[in-house]
Amino acid sequence: MIRAIEWQDNKLRILDQSALPWQERYLELSSYQDVASTIREMKVRGAPAIGIVAAYGIVLGAQGIRTSSPTEFITQLNLIMQTFAATRPTAVNLFHVLARMTKAAASRESIYDINSALRHEATSIHHEEIAASRQLSQFGAELISDDFTILTHCNTGSLATGGYGTALGIIKTAVKQGKKVDVIATETRPLLQGARLTIWELQQENIPATLITDSMAGYLMHQKKINCVIVGADRIAANGDTANKIGTYSLAVLAQENSIPFYVAAPTSTFDLTMTTGDQISIEHRNPEEVTLFSGTRIAPRGTVALNPSFDITPHNYVSAIITERGIIKSPYKQALPNMVVKEI
Amino acid sequence: MIRAIEWQDNKLRILDQSALPWQERYLELSSYQDVASTIREMKVRGAPAIGIVAAYGIVLGAQGIRTSSPTEFITQLNLIMQTFAATRPTAVNLFHVLARMTKAAASRESIYDINSALRHEATSIHHEEIAASRQLSQFGAELISDDFTILTHCNTGSLATGGYGTALGIIKTAVKQGKKVDVIATETRPLLQGARLTIWELQQENIPATLITDSMAGYLMHQKKINCVIVGADRIAANGDTANKIGTYSLAVLAQENSIPFYVAAPTSTFDLTMTTGDQISIEHRNPEEVTLFSGTRIAPRGTVALNPSFDITPHNYVSAIITERGIIKSPYKQALPNMVVKEI
Repeated sequence: MIRAIEWQDNKLRILDQSALPWQERYLELSSYQDVASTIREMKVRGAPAIGIVAAYGIVLGAQGIRTSSPTEFITQLNLIMQTFAATRPTAVNLFHVLARMTKAAASRESIYDINSALRHEATSIHHEEIAASRQLSQFGAELISDDFTILTHCNTGSLATGGYGTALGIIKTAVKQGKKVDVIATETRPLLQGARLTIWELQQENIPATLITDSMAGYLMHQKKINCVIVGADRIAANGDTANKIGTYSLAVLAQENSIPFYVAAPTSTFDLTMTTGDQISIEHRNPEEVTLFSGTRIAPRGTVALNPSFDITPHNYVSAIITERGIIKSPYKQALPNMVVKEI
Repeated sequence: MIRAIEWQDNKLRILDQSALPWQERYLELSSYQDVASTIREMKVRGAPAIGIVAAYGIVLGAQGIRTSSPTEFITQLNLIMQTFAATRPTAVNLFHVLARMTKAAASRESIYDINSALRHEATSIHHEEIAASRQLSQFGAELISDDFTILTHCNTGSLATGGYGTALGIIKTAVKQGKKVDVIATETRPLLQGARLTIWELQQENIPATLITDSMAGYLMHQKKINCVIVGADRIAANGDTANKIGTYSLAVLAQENSIPFYVAAPTSTFDLTMTTGDQISIEHRNPEEVTLFSGTRIAPRGTVALNPSFDITPHNYVSAIITERGIIKSPYKQALPNMVVKEI
């Protein structure tokens, strides 16, 4: 059992994803600044996990505010929220969490009440995300037949979601249902979440997995070795356009070209209906040294210029279905999506 | 000026491509076994370069045969040829070289004559490959307009061809013609020929280049940042299906989906008209540790299963044109190809 995120004794304990698979190192965080750095440095990553950790980070931040004035308290709380808003721009779950935490703190009588409302809301967010993962995995597993070989990208398991998983959750559920499943995991350059995290998680679950470089996925699809592709998401626009880890768009195009179903698995907390299309989604560009260096080893000559977009947008026409905790959504997404996401977030 | 392969004082001097860009290390080889290992370990790689080095390796091998009987000499020479034939299966240039060297040795009066014919043939092969590179680069540069951003994969420059280059040769020629050109180089996992070799070669030539991971190419194409894709080839079947470095097929599909021309640049020594389609081309599978280790560091948990196909096949319908030293070939390739390749190889 992987315990990626735990809240205990007013501290946040997370499994440091940047140290895996070399080391199972846990970080105990008791300040919101440390939590924000942990998100920024991708020691915790995955859209749902970022949201959960930020929620607990806000609880820690609020507990550290030293004032007896409720209005001053709210001002300082907003500054803490802004710190989290600035950590990573693409995954929308973080922003939904900030909205929920702001609402939870509003119109409370006392600082004590605010703090307990924030704690309660953070715990709810965590539990809801785990429940959503489990529910969407049940729905998604219906799409998996016995003897399927499933290609997945990046990491979407317990580590990424604070509990069970989205794409990997579906795979785990299919295996629990007794289906024989093979997983092909792309290594996911530059930060190798597939090689380091997905393979590690699947080993823990005794699910057979094969690692490939990102460049090999098309070859395997063309060889008819893949039955379906399932990926997670960082933000889904109202028309179904999906932001996810860089490389997802390429996999979607290759899947369509080879008549392979391409599924996006995401809780509704990943939807952003304020964006009509994916073009409006901001793509994070990270330090180019993530491309030119690996584990401190330089892999390109000095002076190399590199690009490092962390995400890409997969237009909705490449997406066969979006698997959520409320059911499986199919095209036309523009009609289906607003009906599925009834809860205000 | 990069001197990737040199024949001097009856020794073969090659720039060790596995040590770049960290070290410019030259290897002096005086036995055919060392030359064969050098090919196997990819210290020299690139379809034309493998052919050239094998030719010189055969010269070294022949010089080492200790017999005064011409028939015994030919028997031992054939064993040496077989050693080279077993080094790497996909690039056809190697096999054309073996056929040429076999022919050069045939019907000679004496061992002395055989040796000098082999030496002469090896030098001819080397010179012809450089001339073919330069000529195809002239043809290919016509396809490059001012201000083009060109995406390339793996390494196809002086290192890969023993002289000038195929895809990179075209880029160099376009720059010499005064065109402003930007190059996007994919890193080319697993062995990082793009990051290590292409960026290094372009730095030597002062040509602006930007490194990306293989997974970022689709994103840039979709963003309309790429004007054309040019790659090399390891073997081209009679219908234009092209074997090239793993990941090429994916780039070709993505280029077509985004209406970007996709060019293959290859000397006619890369054609194999005995194969009617790409399905007949044997794909080398290398040690999975090339995937689970990244530049010497383990990147996946112990016990990870990995695949490592070194090449893939791009079906001809994705190829906008094949650029050769005899001109630019366009679809239908099945008619055009046999007419272009008049020389018996």
